[in-house]
Amino acid sequence: MTFTPTDYNPYDFANRRHIGPSPVEMEEMLAAVGARTLDELIDQTVPPSIRQSQPLSWAPLAEHELLAKMKEVGAKNRVMTSLIGQGYYGTVTPPAIQRNILENPAWYTAYTPYQPEIAQGRLEALLNFQTMVCDLTGLDVANASLLDEATAAAEAMTMAERVAKSKARAFFVDRFCHPQTIAVIKTRALPLGIEIIEDDVRKLDPSQVFGAIFQYPSSYGHVIDFTQRIASLHAAGAIAIMATDLLALCLLKEPGAMGADIAVGSAQRFGVPMGFGGPHAAFMAVRDAYKRQMPGRIVGVSIDAQGNKAYRLSLQTREQHIRREKATSNVCTAQALLAVMASMYAVFHGPKGLRAIAERVHFLTQRLARALKAAGAVVAPRAFFDTITVEVGVGQAGILAAARNEGLNFRKIGNNRVGISLDETTDERVLIKVLRAFGIEGVPPHRATLGFPEEMLRTTDYLTHPVFHMNRAESEMMRYMRRLSDRDLALDRAMIPLGSCTMKLNAAAEMMPITWPEFGSLHPFAPRDQAAGYMEAISDLSAKLCEITGYDAMSMQPNSGAQGEYAGLLTILAYHRARGDHQRKICLIPTSAHGTNPASAQMAGMEVVVVKASANGDVDVEDFRAKAEAAGDRLAACMITYPSTHGVFEETVREICRITHDHGGQVYIDGANMNALVGLVKPGEIGGDVSHLNLHKTFAIPHGGGGPGMGPIGVKAHLAPYLPGHPETDNPEGGGLKSTDQGTVSAAPYGSASILLISWAYCLMMGGPGLTQATRVAILNANYIAARLSGHYPILFMGNKGRVAHECILDTRPFADHGVTVDDIAKRLIDNGFHAPTMSWPVAGTLMVEPTESETKAEIDRFITALLSIREEIRAVERGEIAAEDSPLRHAPHTVAALVGDWDRKYSRETGCFPPGSFRVDKYWPPVGRVDNVYGDRNLVCTCPPVEAYAEAAE
Amino acid sequence: MTFTPTDYNPYDFANRRHIGPSPVEMEEMLAAVGARTLDELIDQTVPPSIRQSQPLSWAPLAEHELLAKMKEVGAKNRVMTSLIGQGYYGTVTPPAIQRNILENPAWYTAYTPYQPEIAQGRLEALLNFQTMVCDLTGLDVANASLLDEATAAAEAMTMAERVAKSKARAFFVDRFCHPQTIAVIKTRALPLGIEIIEDDVRKLDPSQVFGAIFQYPSSYGHVIDFTQRIASLHAAGAIAIMATDLLALCLLKEPGAMGADIAVGSAQRFGVPMGFGGPHAAFMAVRDAYKRQMPGRIVGVSIDAQGNKAYRLSLQTREQHIRREKATSNVCTAQALLAVMASMYAVFHGPKGLRAIAERVHFLTQRLARALKAAGAVVAPRAFFDTITVEVGVGQAGILAAARNEGLNFRKIGNNRVGISLDETTDERVLIKVLRAFGIEGVPPHRATLGFPEEMLRTTDYLTHPVFHMNRAESEMMRYMRRLSDRDLALDRAMIPLGSCTMKLNAAAEMMPITWPEFGSLHPFAPRDQAAGYMEAISDLSAKLCEITGYDAMSMQPNSGAQGEYAGLLTILAYHRARGDHQRKICLIPTSAHGTNPASAQMAGMEVVVVKASANGDVDVEDFRAKAEAAGDRLAACMITYPSTHGVFEETVREICRITHDHGGQVYIDGANMNALVGLVKPGEIGGDVSHLNLHKTFAIPHGGGGPGMGPIGVKAHLAPYLPGHPETDNPEGGGLKSTDQGTVSAAPYGSASILLISWAYCLMMGGPGLTQATRVAILNANYIAARLSGHYPILFMGNKGRVAHECILDTRPFADHGVTVDDIAKRLIDNGFHAPTMSWPVAGTLMVEPTESETKAEIDRFITALLSIREEIRAVERGEIAAEDSPLRHAPHTVAALVGDWDRKYSRETGCFPPGSFRVDKYWPPVGRVDNVYGDRNLVCTCPPVEAYAEAAE
Repeated sequence: MTFTPTDYNPYDFANRRHIGPSPVEMEEMLAAVGARTLDELIDQTVPPSIRQSQPLSWAPLAEHELLAKMKEVGAKNRVMTSLIGQGYYGTVTPPAIQRNILENPAWYTAYTPYQPEIAQGRLEALLNFQTMVCDLTGLDVANASLLDEATAAAEAMTMAERVAKSKARAFFVDRFCHPQTIAVIKTRALPLGIEIIEDDVRKLDPSQVFGAIFQYPSSYGHVIDFTQRIASLHAAGAIAIMATDLLALCLLKEPGAMGADIAVGSAQRFGVPMGFGGPHAAFMAVRDAYKRQMPGRIVGVSIDAQGNKAYRLSLQTREQHIRREKATSNVCTAQALLAVMASMYAVFHGPKGLRAIAERVHFLTQRLARALKAAGAVVAPRAFFDTITVEVGVGQAGILAAARNEGLNFRKIGNNRVGISLDETTDERVLIKVLRAFGIEGVPPHRATLGFPEEMLRTTDYLTHPVFHMNRAESEMMRYMRRLSDRDLALDRAMIPLGSCTMKLNAAAEMMPITWPEFGSLHPFAPRDQAAGYMEAISDLSAKLCEITGYDAMSMQPNSGAQGEYAGLLTILAYHRARGDHQRKICLIPTSAHGTNPASAQMAGMEVVVVKASANGDVDVEDFRAKAEAAGDRLAACMITYPSTHGVFEETVREICRITHDHGGQVYIDGANMNALVGLVKPGEIGGDVSHLNLHKTFAIPHGGGGPGMGPIGVKAHLAPYLPGHPETDNPEGGGLKSTDQGTVSAAPYGSASILLISWAYCLMMGGPGLTQATRVAILNANYIAARLSGHYPILFMGNKGRVAHECILDTRPFADHGVTVDDIAKRLIDNGFHAPTMSWPVAGTLMVEPTESETKAEIDRFITALLSIREEIRAVERGEIAAEDSPLRHAPHTVAALVGDWDRKYSRETGCFPPGSFRVDKYWPPVGRVDNVYGDRNLVCTCPPVEAYAEAAE
Repeated sequence: MTFTPTDYNPYDFANRRHIGPSPVEMEEMLAAVGARTLDELIDQTVPPSIRQSQPLSWAPLAEHELLAKMKEVGAKNRVMTSLIGQGYYGTVTPPAIQRNILENPAWYTAYTPYQPEIAQGRLEALLNFQTMVCDLTGLDVANASLLDEATAAAEAMTMAERVAKSKARAFFVDRFCHPQTIAVIKTRALPLGIEIIEDDVRKLDPSQVFGAIFQYPSSYGHVIDFTQRIASLHAAGAIAIMATDLLALCLLKEPGAMGADIAVGSAQRFGVPMGFGGPHAAFMAVRDAYKRQMPGRIVGVSIDAQGNKAYRLSLQTREQHIRREKATSNVCTAQALLAVMASMYAVFHGPKGLRAIAERVHFLTQRLARALKAAGAVVAPRAFFDTITVEVGVGQAGILAAARNEGLNFRKIGNNRVGISLDETTDERVLIKVLRAFGIEGVPPHRATLGFPEEMLRTTDYLTHPVFHMNRAESEMMRYMRRLSDRDLALDRAMIPLGSCTMKLNAAAEMMPITWPEFGSLHPFAPRDQAAGYMEAISDLSAKLCEITGYDAMSMQPNSGAQGEYAGLLTILAYHRARGDHQRKICLIPTSAHGTNPASAQMAGMEVVVVKASANGDVDVEDFRAKAEAAGDRLAACMITYPSTHGVFEETVREICRITHDHGGQVYIDGANMNALVGLVKPGEIGGDVSHLNLHKTFAIPHGGGGPGMGPIGVKAHLAPYLPGHPETDNPEGGGLKSTDQGTVSAAPYGSASILLISWAYCLMMGGPGLTQATRVAILNANYIAARLSGHYPILFMGNKGRVAHECILDTRPFADHGVTVDDIAKRLIDNGFHAPTMSWPVAGTLMVEPTESETKAEIDRFITALLSIREEIRAVERGEIAAEDSPLRHAPHTVAALVGDWDRKYSRETGCFPPGSFRVDKYWPPVGRVDNVYGDRNLVCTCPPVEAYAEAAE
């Protein structure tokens, strides 16, 4: 025999691990699709006129090479003890939460809980979060998290404008709010024509404003009772907002007790690492009267078809994808994974533990203040919780340097003060170092006395629900987390074929670095020389995303896709303003656009003009041209999605861009469908001026059960000077910007910086060729599904060569005549062990399927088998063999409870529970039957219900 | 209001996280038990005469303090690229395997799969391991792992002695075997009277030996065809054993093809980190004729009650706990978790990937050898795979130092050679450094040629089963791992109340450091100055274990409890020999002893004399005295377990020790029940001379689904000089020993060193008082169960104050008259979502329950509810209301499959599937019904069956 070496590369991450179909499977799929080669299929799908000329350049790394590189880069960060505060604090993540939630794919790969039957676990955890926030703030209803404290404050402002009786047009901002919060509020206010009065609270004139926001405790530590101020605001018909801190509220009088209408803040210090800025869960809580005006997701309690308690997202009609240009907010995601972590932190510690942690931090701060005062320092404020400031005069630089020598970061305030915020991780050793930085040796003894007046002590109970009083043994906690995750269906068990949501593999290697302390423990406002590793990662990721998109500069600040849209439009407006084109406010948006587009345009103060779609779903070019002409020099921009939300590569895209440019407008290309473009088409080359990228769709950041996400924006060079800035850093290299004139859209300079590492890891391991192949296979997978299902389900919107892009739309409207709804199909898929595709979007009565490149042929075949068997069940209804309401379609999903009880259905248990495609031994069982949406909205309950309450509801 | 600070400590790991019952729950439990205080209960349970005088001393660390300390200690290790080889190699752990298996409590907290119905997932993974080993070695039957390669080799030797036709008493050891393997073989041979001939294979005279072992490739790299040697061994009636390397076998002619009878080796380099010595899975494969003589666990295929394919442990009657002093091996555990990892590595890569990895390593070695030869170096051997040696003469120290300067460790061989073994992690950059250490710049180009004769190429296929040809996309692999783990019931879902197995919490914080590279990447034979962190950890853990046990020195070498027993007895024998007492061979062992005790004594060449138990289960002191007297100066030792295997603190323990010492014997106290002693009683104070500690029982190392474990031994000062040594280190500080005269029991100096970190973390976080409280609560939990169940189940063996120790024995024999077996109860518990207690040990027809301190009252109550409802079901049988064979007891466990089909049982689906205590929504469903043991042993299949095979079996 002769030796023949193998040419198999076991370390090829792109082709072995990330991309689902093997070469052999791809051959079979191409045959089914009717294309000879993948090249041929791509040529039929992606018009040659728009293809990029140069392939993506960089070579891939193997998984172990990536991890070695990450270690190397991480070592360039210098992890100091940051006592900067300002909304970001050291915290102890309970190891069991880190391991069982943050590092567990059952939690981090889950999708947003739109399908409540397969999301009861995370819905319960999010309801715990809402209950925690309501209890601690003393308000009635909380949402299931917002992006960060600063955007939550801006949302609170616009909400206040909507609900206030006062007709004033100004909004008051306490100058002791966090600077980044003030910057984001101002940015938001500008296009909406809201005047911002930033001043000392003593200067507040309630008659001039529709609302006011106070920081409590203040950014500089003050603990003040706002009861009187709030009363006078109310007297003037204005709304009182408090930006607050959950840990402080474990000890201090709560906003609700002072009469506040809205409370916002960050739950970061409840066990979520700082991560150089995020992701963290922000919160908002409001008085009951305002609950229907609150932005963001709200988990509520309802019942299922059998009358059992079931959780769901409630009041969803408030969401921007429904309200479009009438929307008051473009918020369409949350920080679910981080909210789950924070709520579990509260479950782990319970009210006693949280109180103890708050006291501990406070007593240490007291000792610090005593020692400084004893040494003659001028310390403020008089009443504080965990933050003090010290007058240091011209010695400021010296003190900051002395602190750094001790391994500490203080906050630089103006030119003559430093701020120090203690936190859960502070101990006596840290205290000694802090004092040593001031030249003081030793620490005064512990004393359990308060640093604020006793009347500021909280007098009400909190976290009284049994879930916060569970036995806190780790075995019990671990099992609680496991039980919740087992109730849900995530990517670790089955494909999630969601159109436009790109639920691809989140590889273990990509996730590992984010829980390393060298990335997790950095404060977002730490001196930049301590963040050299992050800077390297962000700058290389920027360069790669620029190459992918054909843009010249990126801003990493927006921490969701919607935020990216908003930031992109602000950038366009700033550009027009700089050229004197203040009148350019019109934004052309096709009817087919995702609802966030008009909502974002609305937030940016633009005037939305809707462009028609032609019969095949494409943008109607003539209508577009007519409306652009009508807009004339008032045209600011158009927003298009490419390939279209109908999953088609429109040939006319260059034409649309040209028309826009001809009229002086800028082209915003929504990056939602970027997974069909990477390596094939660069938005910046086909006419785009700005795009956001959903890193959580195309670039492998997991969905976390409804967040985090990241929505950085790329722009052409002429727009680069107008990208967002940030008050707390004069060098956000991501965008190359040095000032905040253009506004600030997120609390942290680089948004949720730590998860950028995931996308960077993905790009590094895939390499340019791997990314390109991923796009090609995503298109193959979608066309394979379309080919296999056509003839059974009508496929909407194929391109002119009969190809779909990376997703396909199944029309289920014909079945409605027989009483079978799109809901029936979606819920029946749960019996097969699948998450439903996107329902009724972009067209009502359809299902949009996006398999992504990561799914194997076997899994896709299982999904096709399921859909074909459902089609057979529909045919039985069509033939009149069984009524829709008697069929397994209507009774889906089937639970074990239904199975165990009496069975008087018109089909067998076997048929009901084990439709073709479902696993037998490894079957996923939904914990509840079909959830009643109407009941939930009518009987709104958004905090943990008493255990017995829903036994009643069942009767 | 007045401010009152809380006294709650949220960071108290022992009392908040590790210990289950909260203070309030403990009050309720004490009331049920009938004790006023925990002190009172402990006084009633643990005789004052044996209590330790001083409490354990050290203060606890919080979880975050522990992790900070571990980072600090880890940083003292210097991670170099070790090219030492000798059985330990760099390897790339696929990140998805690390995250989803090694870091996943669903895998690492599982127990040994004795209850097959709740263990189908890991049984499948272990069957994959067996199939992989059979395929690669070319042999017929493999076991599901052994402790390490060296002990596997020793086991192979004793097995060869049993099966060989030859009556010779000598065993031949190829001198090119790994030195640690030779040391362990010699140690094993000595007490058994086997003569070891260690020599060059060319000197082998088959007529003189019953067997021979060859290393292939050799420890120094040689690739030799042993076909002729093996044929001549066979001609002489002797057995041929090959110690081999799985990666080499992906390229090289396999042992089976050369005629070998037995192959052993380590699967470490299949994705398991070196971890400074372990844990790793060793393997053994044999020809079909010898399968019933093979030690260790063997997974086999059987059918369940419904005739479906089901996996189980087969041929269990071979195990030591059945054969006792007739046992030929004391092996009673495996390295299940690591075998699962290694098998998944093979599934991840498949035969193509493994072949590619093997070729890559080989071609790099080829390039290295070429470059060295070109530079004039004398390189051996002529035919190699991944290892070469270089003659360096007096330059040895210089070359080793030059290598270290490059960040490399070479192997020091004699005084004039160095060895270099390349591995999966080696790349061109490493090659450049290796050559630079020899003063050679650059590397020769890649060439795909072989460094051994083409006739040594493997010509047979391997890993042909479909499981090794699954699509290797990470999504698919992740889901496969998830599905398997979901089939099993581990501590992350429910308590595992196993008597004598102490399934306590394995806290996340304890587990985290073991996957840090600073601990994972160290070679066990790396220079000690590179392992300063490990040395600190081992030495501090030793000190704490000495304080806990009252012993003066510890050896960390034994990597299982049984190995600890064996090592302890060897230590005793060495002590006697040193005093000239060569005749002291008798070991007194009570009938109640765990079967491992007599098996270990047998292995140590001792003569076992069995001592009677009195009616209450205690050791019969008079019989003991009589037998000690009869033994006289032939008495070597006694082996007792304390508290007894019956769960009682015998008052007579000091008396038994005294009698033994009076006759010149040494007292071995088995540490299996140490969880009832820590902080209360020190074995070294009540008369013990040696004990082993099951760190995987008492000290929080997880069971890993059947291993790893660690069984270090503590000894009094007079025995310290006789603790095990190791050939590869002259300073195993753990024991303070400097030579190997006393023998070597494990391949690595500190056994499975990396998991010692878990026990160290446990001790550090618990602190002395926390450990003591854990013991007290373990006793409370057991007494609470006994109190609640008495009157329903007879409780055997209570102490004289009516108390049990940390476990209790439920007598189920009375139910046998009505046809209800202990098996029925055990399987019915699965319907309630529990792992069964230990069955029929130490008394046939009983259940031994050990709740451990980590279980909360709620979980224990759920367990009690289950047992009480089972008792009601038994009463229904007793009353004749239902026949045992018709009852849910006999049909347990109930599967979904049974539920979905027709139901003609004499009880309802509800009764069958949801007995009291089971969860409704979160119910665990076993994947198979009751497994047929007899069928499995009769139709032995120990490799992955073809997919259709067991459809036939079902008919």
